[in-house]
Amino acid sequence: MKVVVLSGGVGGARFCQGVVDAVDDVTVVGNVGDDVEVLGLHVSPDLDSILYALAGMNDEERGWGRAGETWRVLETAAELGGETWFRLGDLDLAVHLVRTQALRDGATLSQVTARLARALGVRPTILPATDDRLRTWIATPAGEFPFQEWFVGRGHRDEVDAVRFEGGASATPASGVLEAMAAADLLLLAPSNPYVSIAPILAVAGIRDALMARRVPCVAVSPLIGGRAVKGPADRMLARLAGGTSPAHVAACYSGLIDALVVDESDAADLDGLDVRAIVTRTLMVDADARRRLAEAALGAVPA
Amino acid sequence: MKVVVLSGGVGGARFCQGVVDAVDDVTVVGNVGDDVEVLGLHVSPDLDSILYALAGMNDEERGWGRAGETWRVLETAAELGGETWFRLGDLDLAVHLVRTQALRDGATLSQVTARLARALGVRPTILPATDDRLRTWIATPAGEFPFQEWFVGRGHRDEVDAVRFEGGASATPASGVLEAMAAADLLLLAPSNPYVSIAPILAVAGIRDALMARRVPCVAVSPLIGGRAVKGPADRMLARLAGGTSPAHVAACYSGLIDALVVDESDAADLDGLDVRAIVTRTLMVDADARRRLAEAALGAVPA
Repeated sequence: MKVVVLSGGVGGARFCQGVVDAVDDVTVVGNVGDDVEVLGLHVSPDLDSILYALAGMNDEERGWGRAGETWRVLETAAELGGETWFRLGDLDLAVHLVRTQALRDGATLSQVTARLARALGVRPTILPATDDRLRTWIATPAGEFPFQEWFVGRGHRDEVDAVRFEGGASATPASGVLEAMAAADLLLLAPSNPYVSIAPILAVAGIRDALMARRVPCVAVSPLIGGRAVKGPADRMLARLAGGTSPAHVAACYSGLIDALVVDESDAADLDGLDVRAIVTRTLMVDADARRRLAEAALGAVPA
Repeated sequence: MKVVVLSGGVGGARFCQGVVDAVDDVTVVGNVGDDVEVLGLHVSPDLDSILYALAGMNDEERGWGRAGETWRVLETAAELGGETWFRLGDLDLAVHLVRTQALRDGATLSQVTARLARALGVRPTILPATDDRLRTWIATPAGEFPFQEWFVGRGHRDEVDAVRFEGGASATPASGVLEAMAAADLLLLAPSNPYVSIAPILAVAGIRDALMARRVPCVAVSPLIGGRAVKGPADRMLARLAGGTSPAHVAACYSGLIDALVVDESDAADLDGLDVRAIVTRTLMVDADARRRLAEAALGAVPA
């Protein structure tokens, strides 16, 4: 079975681990809307979360970044007046240095990502949604901010009025994305934030069109459990922007794009208005088994 | 007393420490001809050697870089296929990151250097010879190489046929250099390699002209002891390019630019052909006392 997963960062990356454990042929299409320049380096937080998770190098306890991380460079840069709002570890920095240099030398983000995946021993294909510049902006009562300035810099404390994808209108899918989607037996939307993790991928018209025109099932996994986000602002955003945090509200983010929604058992009593099939299971990914079971629940949407 | 020192890297930086210990008002003009881009970062090895030495942060044992240095980033970058020929430590990297970002944001190299010096608590003024791009190229029987490719990449094993300063003809002195030289009571050329450390500074016409037109003494300190370099290829270069390694051969590198040459006691018997005053002392800088004594010998050229 061939599977394509559209994924954001940490939560999505964990789900991708489960999918990779369950299926041989997996292509992950990662969000790049939260890419950011820090200390002059091109940082791709979601692609890196996916890379680290699939390489088994992610820090499970901290929940982001690489295991065994240290902070020598950032601490020293701070003493020199360098920016430190975005936490870059030493191991992480090596990735950003190699990526930034390759990009400056003319490589595309997908070429660099493939190179990093190969170097880290990651077998599944990881593709950025686009090689073009696409950046997420967050409109709040306090003004509009680049995604990471709002998310990390301001601790996503501002309510969100709107989300905009700079460059989205002209961005084309990275090489390999449409081919993988066309060859897939199943398309998955990871349990990532619909507005700031999955929507920037869908802002690439070619990807959205391919999803609309799909001939195979597309299954989204809700990032909410009991109407609450496990981490991050997805629940607050859904409440404010969609009017609620039920499965129907999540599914409405993907209107016309999905055939089923995987929801947690704690949300099973609240399926009113859900216009796609519900797949009810436990969705909290506490360990590798839980990740794999969640993946298998989503994979079950394909007739054997 | 106001002193300006033209200096290369490690050896010159040690001498600058001695000068700073002996005099209050010191401006160091550093070589930038061996600046290099590594992993996309702007590295200024000589300016950094001077910064680290005057901040008391240099690694005395290894002889270069910062004390307490670690190599996490470079080792990780190596695993990712990043370039590793030029050894960048974690603490060092922080400097290069902050510098590179500031340069990309439009700061001049002298502005960045001043900012770094302030952050590191260095009081003497450290100026790059020029804010313009100036790069040293080394012609050898095996071809012409950018300085660091020859020096670090090839371990300076190739004999040198000629040295060229790309950008030298159009480079202008960094802001403050000529003012410091005009105000100085004494000009010093540090015991650095005449061809690849001091010559790139003198390749900036404004600096050479100011030295030619000086009204105060200029004293060079020979980098050779008993006709041998303490470290590096200065002796081999003098033998091949100047025809010998005596004090006269060293002084000939600075023809018309100096009034005295500080030479080691071991070279005192070989002053034939020296057309400037010799100041004989022990020049090996084994510790802070030795550095200061060497500086004081050079400073003695100014009548009290």
